[in-house]
Amino acid sequence: MPKAKSGLEPLAIGIDIGGTGTKFGIVDRLGNLLFSSEMSTRKHKELEGFIDELHTNVMPLIEQAGGIGRMKGIGLGAPNGNYYTGTVEYAPNLPWKGILPLAKLVEDRFKLPVVLTNDANAAALGEMMYGAAQGMKDFIMITLGTGVGSGIVANGKLIYGHDGFAGELGHTIIIPDGRMHEGTGKKGSLESYASATGVRLTAIELLAKSKTPSILRKVPTAELDSKKVYDAAMEGDELAKEIFEYTGKILGMALANAVMFSSPEAIILFGGLTKAGDLILKPTREYMEANLIQVFQNKVKILVSHLKESDAAILGASALVWELK
Amino acid sequence: MPKAKSGLEPLAIGIDIGGTGTKFGIVDRLGNLLFSSEMSTRKHKELEGFIDELHTNVMPLIEQAGGIGRMKGIGLGAPNGNYYTGTVEYAPNLPWKGILPLAKLVEDRFKLPVVLTNDANAAALGEMMYGAAQGMKDFIMITLGTGVGSGIVANGKLIYGHDGFAGELGHTIIIPDGRMHEGTGKKGSLESYASATGVRLTAIELLAKSKTPSILRKVPTAELDSKKVYDAAMEGDELAKEIFEYTGKILGMALANAVMFSSPEAIILFGGLTKAGDLILKPTREYMEANLIQVFQNKVKILVSHLKESDAAILGASALVWELK
Repeated sequence: MPKAKSGLEPLAIGIDIGGTGTKFGIVDRLGNLLFSSEMSTRKHKELEGFIDELHTNVMPLIEQAGGIGRMKGIGLGAPNGNYYTGTVEYAPNLPWKGILPLAKLVEDRFKLPVVLTNDANAAALGEMMYGAAQGMKDFIMITLGTGVGSGIVANGKLIYGHDGFAGELGHTIIIPDGRMHEGTGKKGSLESYASATGVRLTAIELLAKSKTPSILRKVPTAELDSKKVYDAAMEGDELAKEIFEYTGKILGMALANAVMFSSPEAIILFGGLTKAGDLILKPTREYMEANLIQVFQNKVKILVSHLKESDAAILGASALVWELK
Repeated sequence: MPKAKSGLEPLAIGIDIGGTGTKFGIVDRLGNLLFSSEMSTRKHKELEGFIDELHTNVMPLIEQAGGIGRMKGIGLGAPNGNYYTGTVEYAPNLPWKGILPLAKLVEDRFKLPVVLTNDANAAALGEMMYGAAQGMKDFIMITLGTGVGSGIVANGKLIYGHDGFAGELGHTIIIPDGRMHEGTGKKGSLESYASATGVRLTAIELLAKSKTPSILRKVPTAELDSKKVYDAAMEGDELAKEIFEYTGKILGMALANAVMFSSPEAIILFGGLTKAGDLILKPTREYMEANLIQVFQNKVKILVSHLKESDAAILGASALVWELK
């Protein structure tokens, strides 16, 4: 494998493969995103074609950044990515099915060392390396997007678990026999409440159940989403505020359980739902504290990531590279 | 500090301070308990008096085992013991109140290095060093006694958390707004169901709620305990079996959440309730699997500790010593 030329600071390549788009860039040790670009994930039915196009797109950035000799390696973030095996396994949102030897294929194509993990774990490493978790040895990263992802750091290391799949807080059961999760068939998981999808479902439920007047009643159900609920809440709509209050209540309970598990210094939130600010953060903090036993109360910070959302996935993936020996 | 004499295998002293009794012994690297004894924890109102008596009682064992020069150090297990600070903080079941500098006091008295942690963490180390978790890097230890304790190992290390208090699975909320826990004032925690106390409360509830005939109906409420429920279940009592089924259901849900958190290779159960065997293990396994998403199913072992219950606390405490540099 090529090593960074002596005298020049090594750089990392971060690649985040999402269901729709793939983002990539070149990052220095301080987390500066020097060059970046993106492409569609969906254009190629065959994984090999996708990797060819990825190579074609990434190479010009590598050249701009000083050539392959300066690159320490490639960090890959992908849904269902497994750190130990370098494979992506049965990712429902990717166009390629089964078990994909993603790290191996990228390594062969770029002739650089490659490390893979899932997107939420990559995000946690990004926060530890460049973001709100700098200097922390114990923290939990939670991504609140379409779904709920998480990455757990304890003793200064990501918890991968015995099989590489640890950190699925989104699927822990918070309300036994609660709301059905379509993707998993399980009832009452955190993700079925505290995600953009969950906010939409809570809105539909509350609109049906309560008689409170609301501007959301004018929105056709098919168009109801977390953004519309947010806009309504910002206009003072009581029902919309109640929807966020309920979302924060469930999230707060889940965070309390996570705190009593690994006692983190902070919980770092990232993703679309955090844009709702105190509408969701206030009830989250309140219900977290209410469910903690005394020894844990008033000492865990809930922080919102300050990494730019458009860059964070690349930064997170690139952070994997600095752990390479 | 004295070091082990060269040529002779070093030994560890394990001391487990419980609410009622304190057990101590000398242990070799293979987990053989060479000499052991015990004393009352409650006799001394002053901690100093307790430590004097402890020293008086432990010294003869040290002499029998080859003298202080062979001792690598002392491992202390105690409720609410903090690994980082060496203190026991506000332990409700100990006769001494406030923050106790236990490790320091024992170190000064014995002139040996001392490591302290809580009893469930010590139990986890004991299993890793001498028991069912040998060779495992990711597992969870759960003690099912009067209460529910836990010790979580990930990446080969105990998770202490940022403040030394991690691993309180017994206090995680499994049933929101569920049964009140008298000690914490919180509702629906694992401990309020899956402990000996919890089994008693479930028995009282089910006896009141159901009309199923049961030999437990003849037992005065004040005398109803998990042992009586066990005896009844072994005689085929349907209601008693239902009590264990319910206990296993709650425990299984909690274990599923723990698995999705840290993805352990195994969960090791220890303590009084495990004597109920399949009465509790079968529903526990069943409900754990039912609540796991696919990627975690059918790969996590639920094991029962095979360490002798009378020795396990000492072994666990002694295991701390081998981690000393």
